[in-house]
This record gives sequence, C-alpha cells and structure tokens, in this order.
Amino acid sequence: MERDIKKLISEMTLEEKVSLCSGKDFWYTRDIERLGIPAIMMADGPHGLRKQEGASDHMGLNKSIPATCFPSAAGLACSWDKEIAKKVGIALGEEAQAEGVSILLGPGVNIKRSPLCGRNFEYFSEDPFLSSKMATSFIKGVQSQGVGTSLKHFAVNNQEHRRMSIDAIVDERTLREIYLASFEEPVKQGKPWTVMAAYNKVNGDFCSENNRLLTEILRDEWGFEDFVVSDWGAVVDRDRGVEAGMDVEMPNSGGIGDKKLLEAVKSGKLDERIIDRALERVLKVVFRAIENKKVNSVYSKEIHHDIAREVARESMVLLKNEDNILPLKRIESIAVIGAFAKKPRYQGGGSSHINPTKIDNIYEELEKLAGSNAKLTYSEGYDLVSDEIDKELINDAKEAAKNAKVAVIFVGLPDRYESEGFDRKHLRIPDNHIKLIEAVAEVQSNIVVVLSNGAPIEMPWLGKVKAVLEGYLGGQALGGAIADLLFGVVSPSGKLAETFPKKLCHNPSYLNFPGDDEKVEYKEGVFVGYRHYDTRDIEPLFPFGYGLSYSSFEYSDIKLDKKSITDEQTVTVTVKVKNTGDIEAKEIVQLYVKDVESSISRPEKELKGFEKVSLKPGEEKTVVFTLDKRAFAYYNVNLKDWHVETGSFEILVGKSSRHIVLRETLEVQSTVNLKKVLTKHSTFGDLMEHPIGAQVMQAMTPASSVDASASLDGLGTDPQEMMKGTVLRAAVAMSNGSFTEEMLQGILQAVNGSN
Amino acid sequence: MERDIKKLISEMTLEEKVSLCSGKDFWYTRDIERLGIPAIMMADGPHGLRKQEGASDHMGLNKSIPATCFPSAAGLACSWDKEIAKKVGIALGEEAQAEGVSILLGPGVNIKRSPLCGRNFEYFSEDPFLSSKMATSFIKGVQSQGVGTSLKHFAVNNQEHRRMSIDAIVDERTLREIYLASFEEPVKQGKPWTVMAAYNKVNGDFCSENNRLLTEILRDEWGFEDFVVSDWGAVVDRDRGVEAGMDVEMPNSGGIGDKKLLEAVKSGKLDERIIDRALERVLKVVFRAIENKKVNSVYSKEIHHDIAREVARESMVLLKNEDNILPLKRIESIAVIGAFAKKPRYQGGGSSHINPTKIDNIYEELEKLAGSNAKLTYSEGYDLVSDEIDKELINDAKEAAKNAKVAVIFVGLPDRYESEGFDRKHLRIPDNHIKLIEAVAEVQSNIVVVLSNGAPIEMPWLGKVKAVLEGYLGGQALGGAIADLLFGVVSPSGKLAETFPKKLCHNPSYLNFPGDDEKVEYKEGVFVGYRHYDTRDIEPLFPFGYGLSYSSFEYSDIKLDKKSITDEQTVTVTVKVKNTGDIEAKEIVQLYVKDVESSISRPEKELKGFEKVSLKPGEEKTVVFTLDKRAFAYYNVNLKDWHVETGSFEILVGKSSRHIVLRETLEVQSTVNLKKVLTKHSTFGDLMEHPIGAQVMQAMTPASSVDASASLDGLGTDPQEMMKGTVLRAAVAMSNGSFTEEMLQGILQAVNGSN
Repeated sequence: MERDIKKLISEMTLEEKVSLCSGKDFWYTRDIERLGIPAIMMADGPHGLRKQEGASDHMGLNKSIPATCFPSAAGLACSWDKEIAKKVGIALGEEAQAEGVSILLGPGVNIKRSPLCGRNFEYFSEDPFLSSKMATSFIKGVQSQGVGTSLKHFAVNNQEHRRMSIDAIVDERTLREIYLASFEEPVKQGKPWTVMAAYNKVNGDFCSENNRLLTEILRDEWGFEDFVVSDWGAVVDRDRGVEAGMDVEMPNSGGIGDKKLLEAVKSGKLDERIIDRALERVLKVVFRAIENKKVNSVYSKEIHHDIAREVARESMVLLKNEDNILPLKRIESIAVIGAFAKKPRYQGGGSSHINPTKIDNIYEELEKLAGSNAKLTYSEGYDLVSDEIDKELINDAKEAAKNAKVAVIFVGLPDRYESEGFDRKHLRIPDNHIKLIEAVAEVQSNIVVVLSNGAPIEMPWLGKVKAVLEGYLGGQALGGAIADLLFGVVSPSGKLAETFPKKLCHNPSYLNFPGDDEKVEYKEGVFVGYRHYDTRDIEPLFPFGYGLSYSSFEYSDIKLDKKSITDEQTVTVTVKVKNTGDIEAKEIVQLYVKDVESSISRPEKELKGFEKVSLKPGEEKTVVFTLDKRAFAYYNVNLKDWHVETGSFEILVGKSSRHIVLRETLEVQSTVNLKKVLTKHSTFGDLMEHPIGAQVMQAMTPASSVDASASLDGLGTDPQEMMKGTVLRAAVAMSNGSFTEEMLQGILQAVNGSN
Repeated sequence: MERDIKKLISEMTLEEKVSLCSGKDFWYTRDIERLGIPAIMMADGPHGLRKQEGASDHMGLNKSIPATCFPSAAGLACSWDKEIAKKVGIALGEEAQAEGVSILLGPGVNIKRSPLCGRNFEYFSEDPFLSSKMATSFIKGVQSQGVGTSLKHFAVNNQEHRRMSIDAIVDERTLREIYLASFEEPVKQGKPWTVMAAYNKVNGDFCSENNRLLTEILRDEWGFEDFVVSDWGAVVDRDRGVEAGMDVEMPNSGGIGDKKLLEAVKSGKLDERIIDRALERVLKVVFRAIENKKVNSVYSKEIHHDIAREVARESMVLLKNEDNILPLKRIESIAVIGAFAKKPRYQGGGSSHINPTKIDNIYEELEKLAGSNAKLTYSEGYDLVSDEIDKELINDAKEAAKNAKVAVIFVGLPDRYESEGFDRKHLRIPDNHIKLIEAVAEVQSNIVVVLSNGAPIEMPWLGKVKAVLEGYLGGQALGGAIADLLFGVVSPSGKLAETFPKKLCHNPSYLNFPGDDEKVEYKEGVFVGYRHYDTRDIEPLFPFGYGLSYSSFEYSDIKLDKKSITDEQTVTVTVKVKNTGDIEAKEIVQLYVKDVESSISRPEKELKGFEKVSLKPGEEKTVVFTLDKRAFAYYNVNLKDWHVETGSFEILVGKSSRHIVLRETLEVQSTVNLKKVLTKHSTFGDLMEHPIGAQVMQAMTPASSVDASASLDGLGTDPQEMMKGTVLRAAVAMSNGSFTEEMLQGILQAVNGSN
C-alpha cells in the first residue's frame, strides 16, 4: 500500500498536493478524482455520532442525523470498566459504518484540571491513569469496526475560556506525569487513526504548530504513525504547522491554508517533502478507511438504546444512602419531583451534541418499573429555563412530598450552566433547585436526590437528604438506568472519576484558573485532583474513587510476589475481594502507589491499577495487578526519562483514594545511577554524603575543624549543622587563607573523578 | 563632606581603593591610616548586640561580650507596636554606642514563606505591611542613637536549606507585593545606613551580584544612597558584584576579592569609576559613623533588662483562655512543670545568638510575683537535651499537678529544633513535651501551657488544656514578662504576626519547600500566609492577627470621609473602639482591604493598617487610618507599576484576619487608562466589549449571523456564547470566504485606531 501512496503522490501537481492538506468542506477530507483518491467523512461525537447531512451549514452548527446518545465520558469513566468503554466504542463504530462516517472525532482525554471547565463532561477524569485506560479501550472498540478515531484535544486543552489563544504554561514534569500521560497510553496501545491538535498554546507555541508535541513526543517518542488533524479552526500559521507535523487543516479554510502552503513551497520556505510526508500519512488513513468500509451496514436502534441503558447503569454513582433508603420498595408512594424527571438533561452542549434516536422520560421509566403496587406522583418543582424560584411549583412539590413515603428529587445543572465554549464561574446548581430541596425537606425526611450534571457541584443541602445518586449526563437511556438503580434491579457500581470538593476554593487550580488574556499558569504542578486533596489533607465532599453499593465488600489477603524488585522487573499484587452482602453487585478495587520517601515533591499516592469485579452474594475473587517501572517512577527532567528512586514504596489497595483498606511495602532498586557532580556551590553536607567526599573531609579536618563546644556556646546551635549547610566556596572566602581555592579544586577533582 | 570623600578617593592608589571594598577582618571595615580613614565595626544582632571582642575566631563562632537579649523579631512583631519596636532600636543603639559598634546587622525583614524556615524567629511576619512598619520603626530607633543598621537579607532569603546556592524563582508581581514590599518602606522611610545582600539567587542571579535588585530597584527606584554589604561569605563573583552595586565584601576573604577587583580594573574588564562609586558610598557611612560616635557612652543593664521585660510582655500572645482560667489567682497552689521554667529557651541559634547580661529564671519570677499566699512547686517534666520520654520525670509532674489547683506547663522547641543554618522538617514539638501535657491532663483539668518557640507548632493536645500563652523567644527578661501576664499584672495584648496552620501540609509553600538542589519555585505566588488561608478558606489553628485579652473590646461606628476616591486621593477611615471589660488593656485594631472584583487573582483581603490602643475600663477611643493608592493597588507587570482597577473595595476592620467586625464599601476610580489592543487572537467577546468594536459588530452582522434557534437545537447551547469565545482569525478560517482577512484587518484598524 505504501508504495502505491508514494507513487500516487509523485503523480500529483503541487496544487493537488497542498489541497490534500486541508478538508474538502466542513467534514470531508479532500478527494482527487483524477487519481482515484476518495474523500472520507469525519464526524463529531465521543458519546454519539453527530453527522451533519447534506448541505450542512458552514459553521457545523445545525442539527445532525439521529444517533444513539450514550453517557458522556464524565459518566462513562465512573464505570471504571474497560469492557464497557469498549462496548460503547463498538456501538459507535457500528453507527459510523451505517452512516458512512470513517472517523469519529473522539475520545477526549484532557485532564479535569478544574471542575469549572465547560467541557469536562466530555472528558474522563482528573487522573491520567484512569483516563488513558478508558480511552484506550474506547478506541479499540471503535476501530474494531473499521472506523477511525481522533484522540483529542492534544494537548493541555483544559479550559474553554480563551481556548483558542490561551497559552498553558506547564512544567515538563507535570506535562509528562499528568497532561501528556492521559494521551500516551491511548496513542501507544489504542493506536488511533488520527490525533487532533488542540486550539491552545502550550508553553508559548500553538498546539497546531508545536513540533515538540506533534513530532518529537507524539511520533518520535510514542510511535504515532498516522495523521494529525487540527481542531476545527485551530490553524494559525499553516506552513509552520505542517512542518511541525500538523498534517490536515479542518475545516476547509476557503483556500487560505492551501494558498499559504503553495506560496511557502514555491518560495522555498517550505520543503515539498514536508507536504509529501503529510500526504503519506493522510492517504494511508484514507485508503485504510475505504478498505474497511462496510457497505449497507445497519445497526439496531433498540439494541443500542439498551446498551446505552446498561452503560448508564454502570456509570452512575451512589454518593449517599442513609438508613439504606435505597433501593426504593415497589409498594411505596413516591413523589417524583423536578422538571428533569420529564425533560431530562442527558448530554452536554457543543460539538458533541447528539440528535438522539429517542429519549427516556425518567418519570415514565420509574412508573414502568414501579409496577401497580406503587403510587407515583409528578411535580415540576422548578422552571427549566430559569433560575427564578417559582413558589407555586415548590408548594405543589411540597404537598406531593408530604403525602408520599419518599420524595425523589431531580436536580442538577441545566444546559445553560455548562457547555463547550465557556467555563462555569462557580459550582452551584440553580437557586430554584436548591430551594426546592430545602422546601421539600421541611415536610419530608425521606429524600432521594438524583443529579444530572457534567461536573462536580457544591451540595450545601447534603445534610437534608438521605440519598444522592450522581447520574452525570446519562445519555438517552438514562431514565431506564435510573429506574433500574433506584428500584434495585441492579446495584449502583460506579465510583467517582474525579474529586467533588467541598468548596470551589479548595480546588488546586483555584487561584490560577482560567488565567489572564494571554496565559494560564499550571502552578499546582502535578498536584491535580486527589493528588492535591490527599497530599495537602484537604477534606473533599466526596473523594476520587468513591461510590456506594447496595451490597458490601471485604478486602483481604494482600500479597506481593516479591518483597523487592529492580526497576526493570515487575511485581504482581493479589488481593481477595468478597461480597459480604446479600445481593449480586460489582466492586471497583483500586490500587495506589505511595513513594515513602522522595527527594522531590510527589503526591501522597497515585492510582496505578483498578479492576471492576462482579460478585454474587458470598462470592470471593482474587484480583491481580501487575506493576512495572512506571508505577513507581516520576518524570526526571534532567534525565529526560522516567525514573525510580531507590527505596520503599507502599502498595495501597482501597475503595477510594481516601479509603485504603490494605497496604504492603515493596523495595524498588533503581538500575540507573544518577551521578552527583559536586561544584564549588555544593555544601559540606553534600561532600559528607559522597563516598569519596567523606574521606576527603577526614583528610582536611585541620582546616575545617572548629571548637565545637566554644561555638555551641557562641552560636547557640550545633556548628556541625551550620557547617553542613555551608557551600565550599564560602569556606574559601571565610577561612582567611587556611582553606584555599586550590584545595577546593583538589577536592572537587578527587570527588568528581578525572573527567 | 562629599567633596572631601571624592578628594580622598582621588588620592588613593588602586590597591588602596580595592582594599576598601572588603573588610579589614571579620567585623571591621578597612582603614587607611595614611589618609586618615578609620575602620568601623559591624556586629550581629537584631535583638541584641553580638560583639566579638579581641582576637575573635575567624569564623565568628565564639562567645560575644554580654549584651541585653530582647525578644526576637518573631515575638516583637506580635506586639504590633511601632513604638515598642523603636524602643528596642534605641536600646540597641545605646548598647552599640557603649561598645563602639557603628553598625548593627539588622533588622531582618524576610517574609515567613514557610513556618519551617530555621531563621523565622529573626523575622517579623508573613505579611509585608506589618513587617515593614515594624522594621522601619526599629531602624529609626537604632539610628536615632547615631548607630547604623543593615537591612537584611536582601532579598527572598526565605529558607536555610541550601541558602548559599538556592535559586528562588519568583514572579515579578509576587516579588513586588510580598518579598520586596517588606524591604521597600524600611528603605524609603527608615533609611538604613546599609543593606545586606543575601546568600541566595533570585531568578537566576546571586543577590550579591544582582544589578536588578541592588541597583535598579534598591537605588534607582527606592532611592537608597548608602552602601550594600554582602552577607558574610555571600560573594561569588567579586567584580560582577561591585558592578551590580554590591559595595563591601564581608568578611575579609584573605585578599581573594581584592585581588580579583585589582585584576579586573587592570585588565579593563571593570571601570575604575565603579570602584570609586562603591568607595563614595562606604566612606560616607564610615565618616557618618565616626561623627556620630559617642565616647564614654554607657547604658544601664538593669534598665535595659526592664525594657526587655516590657517588650516581652507586649509581644506574647494569649491563644486560648477557657473558663477565664487566666489570670492566675495569687492564692492558689500552682504546679510549675517543664525544664524550660528554670532553663528557659529565650533566643535562637546562629549569628543572632546573644550572650545575655542576665537571664530570668521563670520559676523564680513566678514565685516572686505569686507572693506568700500562693504555693508553687516545680517539676522538670522532661530532659532538656533529649526527646526521650522520661517516665519518672513525667510521674513526678503528674503527682505535683494532681495536688495543685492548676498546672502551668512550659514546653516548646528546644535549641536543637530550630536555628539559623537549617530548616525544620515538621511542626511538632518533642515527643516528651507532648507526652508530658497528655499525662498531666489525665490528672488535672486546669492546665495552662506556656510556649517557647520561634515559629508555629502543631498542637494536637490543644483540646486538653484550658489556656495557651505563646511566648515566642522572649529574650532574657521573659520570666518576668510571663509572670506579669499569668498573674494579670498586665493583660496580654499581642496578636499573631503569622498564621498557625492546623497541619504543615496546609501551608501554601508545602509542596514547593525547600525546593531541590538548584532552585525553589514560589508557585503559591502572592498567596502567602493568611492570603492563602483566607482566600482558599482553609481553617487555620490560629489565624493571622489573632490574640486574646483579659478584657473585651467593642468596635463601632466605622466611617469613611469619602464614598468614592480616585487613585490619586486618600481616604480616611475612623472606627471607635471601647474597652468593655473591667481592666485596663490594649487592643490591636486591624484594617484589611478587599478588592471586590478583579480581573486578576487577588487575595481575599490584605492588611493595610493597624493601630494598638490602650484603653481603661469603659474608655472609648477613635482610631484613624489613612489609605492611599497602595492600599488598593496590585503590581501590574505590564505597566511595571502599582495599579488600581476601578471598582468597589471593601474596607474591613477586625480583630484578626478571620474576625472582621465592621465593613464599609469604597469606590476607587483609576486615573490610568489601560489601553486594550485587539489582535486577530482576540475574541468576538473582546470585540463586543470594546466601545468601537460593538459598533463594528453591528455593521458586520450579515457575515457573523447564525440562525440562533437552529443551532441551539443542533449544539444544545447558546451559539452567541460559543461565538463570544471564538477568536477573530478562526472566523476567517471557518467562514468559507464570507469573513475575509481584509475584513478582519479593517476591524482591527477601526478598533485600535490609526496608529
């Protein structure tokens, strides 16, 4: 195939070549009939296909053809279930095939730096390990159907505010350990057909013309071989971009980009081989897509709706369940309250917005499952399009709640509160939602709150309700899923993929989000999400990895197959998990690693393994984790590589980042020798710690000795301690000639070796 | 005088000139007999004179002549009393005159970035406003006696760990608002005779050769006219240093520095006029010192001891006083517990370590004041030189406590825990101190803890005791002061000049202290101390500005003389404070300013005024504050100046940073017009906010209009909101020719004006 592509390229005119470096229109790649090069279609939608048909408007704003709307990534990630992510991917691949779409623009793996980011609902997690595992499975699912993906938004696109120009200033270690780590495994293991260059700048360079990101890291280090497409409208300097590795500009810029490339090649500013390089990458994917096209492919909307329901069920998180008020009994009188119950919020706004094949009416799904022995009422509670408190609606809801055994209140974030394109300014839900809960609580103590929202909210009303089910944006089948969970058809099994803070001001990015006109500084460094809350011991509302079940689980018998490894070996950790409740349920077992002592500032713990296990009542399974170097390493900016410091590591197994139930210690020995070079700015302490240095110190004692007792008296402190902190050069300056520059040089030579 | 100096310099050989650029020995400047240039002596000691006499050792380690040891700056700052700071300065000036010392090396105004810094006891505060006011008064006090000061350590010397080589990376705004702000007013108002260049680097350059700090800011901006001396051993590159404005190297480097300067001038690398410049500065001070010398000056050790007692009394902070257990009645049986009661910790270790004229024995002072109706016992409680728990000592203490009405326990940080030269690693007091409190609490519920420590500690035992008196390092007369306070001779009136965190990990610098081998990044920015705790709403153990009294105070009647000012005007704030208790006492009234809305990230509130008032029972006084531009401004790095954003500011008056009792709103109008220039990277939102831009948008409607309802349906979000976040250049790329590059340029020209 590759030979043909080279030949094809050689037959093109320069004009044809540059034309292939951008789209044909808003969604298609460019075709060249004369050479038999077809166009392929791309379409939005990590959680559903957003295909705009026919004469779509030039801004891509209009309604798309119907497709299944699955739970968005924020929810999907809470399933912590790689198989579920793959299942969604497969379903999406089928729909894309059925609609003739060759590349699905997703998944989005940007890290949730701040809960305010308007697009968080499209992303998986605050943790790169969880995010990358879910994304990898998703990609494998889609691509197993012969449809490509576009891993986005590469990289560090963590806010909507000024997203097209903001410069994200991030230090290298943080980039590697957090922001790039979320892309690394999906690229290496998922092998997406395309990667999408983000709008923003990273450390001064636009992503769409960032050679460091698009070539050095993505291709040279991670081995990505296919094409990079721009986020829609992300191109700034087209020829700089193609040189940096940004192969295809989308959408078609009305010929502006092509013209610039043409001029650049003609003037000699741009080597034509750079264009050829881009074309090879593009055409390889175009022909792969054509080869994989399944003509007359169809899918069952009903089956996909059922999948969406299953996924939603796996994704929702039970945050509170006092007095085991849930599951609801199907013989009770239930006041269903809140406009969301009939007009659900099930997806987010922006390019991921799906035109669903159908939408569950939550109230109807509840009625269906409740059966005839239960008595349900519905009260609107609040006006969907306004924050205004409507007393009448609230009084109706109160009345209904008073007369029922239990009130189930549906609240959360309306569309206008979160969307692509802008960030939230606070974590509050609308006043009329809060007021509704408070009013109902005056007359009814059995309150269950079901939340629809794409990202964390503050819950000042938490103490007034008995149960909270976090539904995230549950997709078109959320109603059935909520009914399944509330009535206990299945137990909730999701756990939070992000921390819910008590207050926005506790978030690590709080003082540096969303930055100013030009830049946003990631001053919190690697301390994102639970890495911040746990290391600084700030109590969150709900911690990362947290979620309740209708059953209970016991962890026991943690075992490591070795007590000590080198950083070239792996260790296997096993732990037993038992369902000690009386219903079948799933548990997400989490493994974190803690570096006990480190010369650099590291998080209290980091997620390095997770497994979701399904257990019948009384059943016990053994969960197995394998840890390699990366589980213990930090990114060493001097080495320009991952590095493990020799020492003890704690292997922590638990139910959330804050609920560790088992722990074991492992010794890891580094095989990399970090040579410490001493200089005149090194301290006597450094010298004493150096094997040769210690001997040298011994020899020079006369020069450096001080009368310890006299100076202890004079300084009120241990002179040896003062000495340890003194730099060698200062001793020269202060010894009045007894410790000379030549002696210093002699020491450095002895310690650092002959070279 | 100046003319003489120039003439003197012209008569010197080059060798003589360079010799004057360093000391004669460890403490003296260089003299030249032939030209009648005398040497003057410098001596350590912001809280007492540390003069090493005769053949002092070459490292300056030995015992100094006796001098009065006043409370160290950490305590002095808690007096919030500028007159008290001045009083200490005057006393020190008198002692220096009596001992023939011309320059006292202090005060130290480095900001307490981390409570771990080993030298925090020598510094005033985490807040530059409080720090600079106290330092200015101190300088005025010393210099009123014809003795110079050395304002130190300039600058950003906020840790002992690798202090001689660490590179402090601090952004410009943080430098200006926090770290340099602590020096700015003392330089401008206090006019110290010398400024001491610190050991460390700031943003890549050693302070001792930092032209930006030593010349551009210190001299050109702040108007400093005298000489800069190196911290002892801080010189690295001598000729670079003198060029940057580092005039005198201390101590004498055995001729190394002189030789380097000589060579540099001879080789033409260094302009001789740079040496001349340094000499003018040095000689001006030398002759000033000589002129101000008071021969046969003496001081009364007794009077100075009494001053030390008064200062200590004003500085100690009552942190807790449940059930009004304090003041103690002089008829009770009191178990005095803890080795500190007889061997007090009253000062810190290092260059500030004083050889006191006498030291109060706290136990004896308590006995003296208690009188014959009270019954005191003493128990050692713990071994002073070890952390080991001594069960016997503890049992003795328990027994004594059980038989008494009240137990007064003396604990804190021993010498070995904090000192110049190294930082603490945690905030704990020794295990045997903690165990002692816990053990006594088992048998006695009336416990008063008196602390001796130079910086905050964690207090896990706080709930077990009724009262805590924070004594800091109270100087040689601490015993009398403690007795005065415990028995209520005077009411405690100190308030904390720094936040006591609940846990070390809550401190803003926690994740970035003390940095690595080479650098420490001040990533918390301006959010130091209460600026962090209050803005992020993290509950401290005791907040900044907190302290209790034996009396009570009522604040009322806050008044502003104007409702609105420009940033060129001042506003006067008055507030009434009344002593509502029944004993005479002092109250520290604090004024904070809060910028209600800001385009940049600003602290929740900042201290901009304080006043300590003494009130008889029932007495009311009016406290007056005057606020000018600086009270409302932040440092604008683009303007390179202080800037006030037009808008509302809250004037907050309170008893601590967390206990605001009165507030008023003021409008401040900026007189500086920050012109906003739009570019192709500006958003449509920016355009719409611009007065001309809004008109332009109107005109271009056809090109930018979208069918709002269609796209709301298609995107699930408001397309106008999406548009607001879109940059102008992207509209060109995505409009498919309907919005051209030329149209964009036209808009920018129209908006930005003809230039």
